[in-house]
Amino acid sequence: MDIKQLISERKDNYLKSLFEVLRQKSISPQNDGMEECAALVMEKLKDAGMKDVKKIKTKGYPVIYSEYHVSNELPTILFYGHYDVQPPEPVEKWDSDPFNPEIRDGRIYARGAGDNKGQFMAHILAVQTMLEHEGELPVNVKIVIEGEEETGSKHLAEFVESNKDLLAADFVYTSDGPMLSDGSPYILLGVRGILYIEMRLKYAAFDNHSGNKGNIVRNPAWTLVELLNTMRDSEGRVLIEGFYDDVKLPTNIEKDLLKQLPFDADDIRKEIGDASFDMTQEVYYRKLCFEPTFNIAGFNSGYGGEGQKTVIPNEAVVKMDIRLVKNQDPHKIFELFKAHVESFSEDIEIVKLGTMDPSRTSPEHLFIDIIKSSLEASFERASYIQPSMGGSLPDNVWTKVLGVPSVVVPYANSDEANHSPNENIKVSHFFHGIETTYRLIQSVSEYDKKDLRNL
Amino acid sequence: MDIKQLISERKDNYLKSLFEVLRQKSISPQNDGMEECAALVMEKLKDAGMKDVKKIKTKGYPVIYSEYHVSNELPTILFYGHYDVQPPEPVEKWDSDPFNPEIRDGRIYARGAGDNKGQFMAHILAVQTMLEHEGELPVNVKIVIEGEEETGSKHLAEFVESNKDLLAADFVYTSDGPMLSDGSPYILLGVRGILYIEMRLKYAAFDNHSGNKGNIVRNPAWTLVELLNTMRDSEGRVLIEGFYDDVKLPTNIEKDLLKQLPFDADDIRKEIGDASFDMTQEVYYRKLCFEPTFNIAGFNSGYGGEGQKTVIPNEAVVKMDIRLVKNQDPHKIFELFKAHVESFSEDIEIVKLGTMDPSRTSPEHLFIDIIKSSLEASFERASYIQPSMGGSLPDNVWTKVLGVPSVVVPYANSDEANHSPNENIKVSHFFHGIETTYRLIQSVSEYDKKDLRNL
Repeated sequence: MDIKQLISERKDNYLKSLFEVLRQKSISPQNDGMEECAALVMEKLKDAGMKDVKKIKTKGYPVIYSEYHVSNELPTILFYGHYDVQPPEPVEKWDSDPFNPEIRDGRIYARGAGDNKGQFMAHILAVQTMLEHEGELPVNVKIVIEGEEETGSKHLAEFVESNKDLLAADFVYTSDGPMLSDGSPYILLGVRGILYIEMRLKYAAFDNHSGNKGNIVRNPAWTLVELLNTMRDSEGRVLIEGFYDDVKLPTNIEKDLLKQLPFDADDIRKEIGDASFDMTQEVYYRKLCFEPTFNIAGFNSGYGGEGQKTVIPNEAVVKMDIRLVKNQDPHKIFELFKAHVESFSEDIEIVKLGTMDPSRTSPEHLFIDIIKSSLEASFERASYIQPSMGGSLPDNVWTKVLGVPSVVVPYANSDEANHSPNENIKVSHFFHGIETTYRLIQSVSEYDKKDLRNL
Repeated sequence: MDIKQLISERKDNYLKSLFEVLRQKSISPQNDGMEECAALVMEKLKDAGMKDVKKIKTKGYPVIYSEYHVSNELPTILFYGHYDVQPPEPVEKWDSDPFNPEIRDGRIYARGAGDNKGQFMAHILAVQTMLEHEGELPVNVKIVIEGEEETGSKHLAEFVESNKDLLAADFVYTSDGPMLSDGSPYILLGVRGILYIEMRLKYAAFDNHSGNKGNIVRNPAWTLVELLNTMRDSEGRVLIEGFYDDVKLPTNIEKDLLKQLPFDADDIRKEIGDASFDMTQEVYYRKLCFEPTFNIAGFNSGYGGEGQKTVIPNEAVVKMDIRLVKNQDPHKIFELFKAHVESFSEDIEIVKLGTMDPSRTSPEHLFIDIIKSSLEASFERASYIQPSMGGSLPDNVWTKVLGVPSVVVPYANSDEANHSPNENIKVSHFFHGIETTYRLIQSVSEYDKKDLRNL
């Protein structure tokens, strides 16, 4: 039977299964629904026919592991995903309940729809379909779904380190993040790293009246404004000493891959919701793939409601989200950041909320061609290869800790609004994702295990 | 009968009456309960025996006017207060419901207890007691209670301008704000002005993902951080051109009054909740009475909750609370502020949320001596005279628009926590406040109308 037809017949069941998972909260930053979601994911893996389904404890939320082993002679694909989601706030900006999925205009709206429940369910449902239809898988499959991606995958490296034999594979396959803004599917060979820092400064024990105490009590918002200004110039260049020291510039092959990537400034304007965007193709991809960021993810101090409140805030909190490129070490950058802050003021509490290393896999492995074909057959359009995504995933856990090449293959539409209100995945993308995973498992079996990696 | 005894006998009734008013919300910045509170205040004035009680419309919330006229030959005192209160947020930091008053350790805790319901009720209850006890007042009394003080008394000047004959008086008496930090009562001869500005900057239509769009989308928090840094140097001096041009330095008499004011750095440390405070007496009062402020009352952008949220915020809002000293004009300063911002960026929306002029009355009027005696007899301790308070009140409405001298006489304890969680007034201060107003009305009647003003 034709694969497309096979999948088409099961659409209602696929949606039913995904909706169950979307209805289950699993907000790791707020510790809401995590245990229930882990149990549900295990149930879904068992229903699919995966073996050895187990919950493996970490120091944080557990990892759900499962495998389907056929033979040691056959290749092994390890699928990685995460069952945790971002907080839904601001909830009032959603057009429907973030935890009650709704289909509107061909899209499934729910927190987690595009990040990452739609994708790991695509893998599970592809396996289920193949087992129902063929009775067996043609290669070995492992599915690993963790619960801490949205809080920085703090314990994933330790988990991989402790379970290297269990996780042994020929390559690691992750589906996460959005497709290119023109709608093209693509294969990501790497990620930027991240260092997420919270700075907290408290002077007085409580807010003071801005009149009765104006000029008398110190204002922590002012201190952080001054500090931030010493950290970055008006061109956006970071002024922390040593920040750029380890940045590795792109190779010519990587630059060539970038040049082929589609680019439509109008699409990007819509996607980001900012009409003033006017970068060239080259600048856009260079800034996204090869340059670190220094983003204020939150600056909160004092009154933010309607009208006036005449206070000297006693506390200010700044959240810095710093994306890192190849060879920058988040722990080293944290120490440089900390030294800079401490030389400015000793009163500021600096907390490292999360880190991920940057990571990059070579474009020359054979399995990348196989993925490209599966993707193009399923989504029925040309695909691309990008050396690094702008975002971060714990990819280095695979490439460095496990020592296996790793790719990221987005299934979600570019306007999935992940981490934002009205997160969604197109219904068609969800089905094409199932098909891609199905085709990939099937196609890999046509090659010899030893040929999959060329390097 | 002795005045202290007279008041002591009525304590339960005084508290009952105040609690009724405190239970009634009247949050002008949030338009919550204003009409109901206005009606309740009118009822209290009528119960007290005041005549001609009426609600006078303004373009905002109404002013409650009332008078007790005895004779044109007698002096007239105009008492001014406000029935609106600050928002209670953050509500979770209150130890009891802000709108369900509670007495703990000799203090009444409620939003409005110390700002300004405790005080205007003291005036009303003093009149009520005198009328019950004497059957008549010995001078003319007018009581004016407005509903927009916490949003900048926007329509008070217009109201006074339109009702000059109705409001004619020999002096205006306001009780508001806290006493000196050592607990001494004092008389304030003036106020700092205020200019409250909101700056709002929005780039994208929605928050973007800090990874997928990092370096691509502009961050309004960064822009406002940079802007703020161009407005103030690290010593706190404002860099807006012309900001200090009209500042009038204090006279020698004013400086001498400051030198006599009590000062205990330890008390101030406790009062402000900041142990690092280490100003001298001279610097403290100079900064409070004679120097403008440039306070960030709020800087809010992006994620402020627990843990990480990886967003590029699409909007940033900064609230600036600028206190002005003698001769600085808030409208002129606003234009200078606006010009500065516009020369930095044309994308920033600048809203003038409120203004009040600075104001100052001469220390040489006879009625100031009368008030000093009333205050000292009631609170049973020495009192002081301060040329200006740190905070703002629409005092210039009386001194300039009505053309009458005006004083502010705080009844609340210095740690009243007004505008903050756990706002309170000491029970004893509330009763001493009633006594002060009672004694003042009685003592003024001993002088000739024409002698009250020396200037």
